[in-house]
Amino acid sequence: MAVQPTRIGLAGLAVMGQNLALNIASKGFPISVYNRTTSKVDETVERAKKEGNLPVYGFHDPESFVNSIQKPRVIIMLVKAGAPVDQTIKTLSAYLEKGDCIVDGGNEWYENTERREKAVAENGFLYLGMGVSGGEEGARNGPSMMPGGSFEAYKNIEDILLKVAAQVRDSGPCVTYIGKGGSGNFVKMVHNGIEYGDMQLIAEAYDVLKSVGKLTNEELHGVFTEWNKGELESFLVEITADIFGIKDDKGDGHLVDKVLDKTGMKGTGKWTVQQAAELSVPSPTIESSLDARFLSGLKDERVQAAKVFKEGGELARIWKGGCIIRAIFLDRIKQAYDRNAELANLLVDPDLAYFDSYRRERLPANLVQAQRDYFGAHTYERTDVEGSFHTEWFKIARQSKSNM
Amino acid sequence: MAVQPTRIGLAGLAVMGQNLALNIASKGFPISVYNRTTSKVDETVERAKKEGNLPVYGFHDPESFVNSIQKPRVIIMLVKAGAPVDQTIKTLSAYLEKGDCIVDGGNEWYENTERREKAVAENGFLYLGMGVSGGEEGARNGPSMMPGGSFEAYKNIEDILLKVAAQVRDSGPCVTYIGKGGSGNFVKMVHNGIEYGDMQLIAEAYDVLKSVGKLTNEELHGVFTEWNKGELESFLVEITADIFGIKDDKGDGHLVDKVLDKTGMKGTGKWTVQQAAELSVPSPTIESSLDARFLSGLKDERVQAAKVFKEGGELARIWKGGCIIRAIFLDRIKQAYDRNAELANLLVDPDLAYFDSYRRERLPANLVQAQRDYFGAHTYERTDVEGSFHTEWFKIARQSKSNM
Ligand SMILES: NC(=O)c1ccc[n+]([C@@H]2O[C@H](COP(=O)([O-])OP(=O)(O)OC[C@H]3O[C@@H](n4cnc5c(N)ncnc54)[C@H](OP(=O)(O)O)[C@@H]3O)[C@@H](O)[C@H]2O)c1
Ligand SMILES: NC(=O)c1ccc[n+]([C@@H]2O[C@H](COP(=O)([O-])OP(=O)(O)OC[C@H]3O[C@@H](n4cnc5c(N)ncnc54)[C@H](OP(=O)(O)O)[C@@H]3O)[C@@H](O)[C@H]2O)c1
Repeated sequence: MAVQPTRIGLAGLAVMGQNLALNIASKGFPISVYNRTTSKVDETVERAKKEGNLPVYGFHDPESFVNSIQKPRVIIMLVKAGAPVDQTIKTLSAYLEKGDCIVDGGNEWYENTERREKAVAENGFLYLGMGVSGGEEGARNGPSMMPGGSFEAYKNIEDILLKVAAQVRDSGPCVTYIGKGGSGNFVKMVHNGIEYGDMQLIAEAYDVLKSVGKLTNEELHGVFTEWNKGELESFLVEITADIFGIKDDKGDGHLVDKVLDKTGMKGTGKWTVQQAAELSVPSPTIESSLDARFLSGLKDERVQAAKVFKEGGELARIWKGGCIIRAIFLDRIKQAYDRNAELANLLVDPDLAYFDSYRRERLPANLVQAQRDYFGAHTYERTDVEGSFHTEWFKIARQSKSNM
Repeated sequence: MAVQPTRIGLAGLAVMGQNLALNIASKGFPISVYNRTTSKVDETVERAKKEGNLPVYGFHDPESFVNSIQKPRVIIMLVKAGAPVDQTIKTLSAYLEKGDCIVDGGNEWYENTERREKAVAENGFLYLGMGVSGGEEGARNGPSMMPGGSFEAYKNIEDILLKVAAQVRDSGPCVTYIGKGGSGNFVKMVHNGIEYGDMQLIAEAYDVLKSVGKLTNEELHGVFTEWNKGELESFLVEITADIFGIKDDKGDGHLVDKVLDKTGMKGTGKWTVQQAAELSVPSPTIESSLDARFLSGLKDERVQAAKVFKEGGELARIWKGGCIIRAIFLDRIKQAYDRNAELANLLVDPDLAYFDSYRRERLPANLVQAQRDYFGAHTYERTDVEGSFHTEWFKIARQSKSNM
């Protein structure tokens, strides 16, 4: 228990919350932590001890949690977006006082944040919707943060955010007040949409290098490591290189080949596409990457389709193909009908790309799943064993690098 | 004035309403008509006289309009989707009685229909959301109709709908009860999404035939006329052939070349993309066609971009390019950065497709606008004269065909 009030509170101690709490404490801000399932509270306090006796104070009930924080209180929530946020606000509100501030650090739909900002204002509470980027590692060692909503609330925690954020030489801490209402969540949503596109670009490169170029995982590891030294240097290219270097701990070969090619998602990519449409903004790359995830999700159907439609190679994708392909595309459609006048749906003609993905038993979505587990601990399924798995990709990669 | 009650009422006498009212009357059902702006009422009655003394009865106030219809009353609304529908319901509700039925024939968002069905049920009214397809010509001579909502209400007008709908040999009238709630609007929404895709396919074929193949309008007219005799036979290919045959009545050359390449839209394509994302359904063609419309809308920016970025041909579209292109796409991106390390946005590299459309002063969107005006009287702008224009494409095409 804290003898004197802590500087800030954090509710929701899954991957993101736990790591951000430790980060805040490690910057010298005593922090109170709470989680609906109390075992995670103890786990967090335990980690805080191990990682250098950090000033993290755990509470099993919301009342003593709230009371332990200095006024005006600031509480960061890091729980699942949607109803869990409403429930957490309700739980905490019973003990908060006028002037206290609630910060939602999750990937929330911006309109929900605007609704909540208004609702809690009736009790005199301030509200921030703050996108947090960088995944598990970022949360622990320096995330990029996108706070939006009450400027007064932002000012109350600016000192903490400036120290907790990633520090970039020349350009300073990776945090800035974004603007009013749900703007912080909106910016984070677009950020995630871009991430979808980046990951799909890399997955397609992987697919071609592996399926057409027949590169081994060792060679892929080499290619991506090289790329990461040049103009393509980036977090996602770096972790991709790492992923190709990691062996399966449950069997032979590389772990990436055992990861099920069925990409998960939590909504931000979908929202970006929907909002882009709403605002008349073309977003072809993000749309394509979202569609690729949808298709990857139809694993069972794909396995069936792969059996039924054996023939045909990886043919040109004609939907948005180059102009030479476009010159004959209507002819292709005509040929499709010639081949089968009963064709219920053009999509099932073997010349078309959607179909080419659809009838592939295995897509490069396993890499995307590995990336998501790497940076976000989102877990993955395996091709050989039932269940949800999580690998400490970062640790293994760091170890193997330091062994070199 | 009708001496005895009419069989049905129709409120909203723009393109769709006026033509559907005349269609209903021509099938022998006396119809009452009303429009907020009363001049359209007189116009409709006038047309009814000219087109064979059809039993169309016009009213300038909602009360006498509602009172003129036999009970239980059925009133079809054909007004702009959204708030105008709510306003029209409010206006009519004041005079309706328990058991009466309101039918929204517009392109409405299905959730609005479900909200209204519940709201009017409090007054004991029944509600149908009925998608109507076929545009101006269809409404007048036989549309496809997609009624959803109250089955009882459907049964009240089934006899009318069966006669008014397009009649297809072997498969019967183009109308069927779709299902509960907003299902009729939902199906119409997807129908329109497909229409977006079809139109964009044709626009791209036009673009290649014209820009690469250097075909004249006469040759395009010939090609599409031929296509319409084979497996591609369809309404849209047919009207496209017609469009290339129509001369400009305000100057030299063909009208299609004077139509501004800036595509309008009213929401259904956007909704289809948003709903597909919501339901995890890949919809690449519809997404692409929506993006093409968004890009076409940026006409002023495109004209500027065309001036600034003169060089570069119509290069391969690499976003969803064939697999050979994909094999080098990361390299292309790398080259883009090599060319310009300051590159703020990959999209402005001349190798990329989005950019290729963006920097084109003129896109094939003029054809899409001509098609929209042809089948939906949606009007178009011209490249040479300010203002909104509407052409009776169908009449002109029919005349020139009968002259041959
Ligand atoms: N993972 C990432 O890489 C990443 C990156 C940036 C942002 N985010 C966002 O940050 C937020 C947290 O992400 P996460 O991956 O750490 O966790 P998560 O899996 O999204 O959520 C788990 C947390 O939510 C709590 N929770 C769920 N339902 C609840 C309810 N009804 N009432 C109260 N608490 C409830 C859980 O409590 P129990 O333990 O009691 O179940 C747990 O603390 C999410 O919005 C996520 O999208 C995640
Ligand atoms: N055009 C097509 O090809 C087509 C095809 C299928 C479906 N639809 C759908 O059918 C519906 C009608 O289309 P449209 O092209 O005929 O007409 P529209 O241009 O969409 O709408 C014009 C009609 O709406 C009325 N209106 C607008 N605001 C109003 C308000 N606040 N209160 C009362 N009435 C109001 C107008 O009355 P005033 O005359 O008083 O302004 C006029 O009757 C729309 O939902 C459209 O999307 C159109």
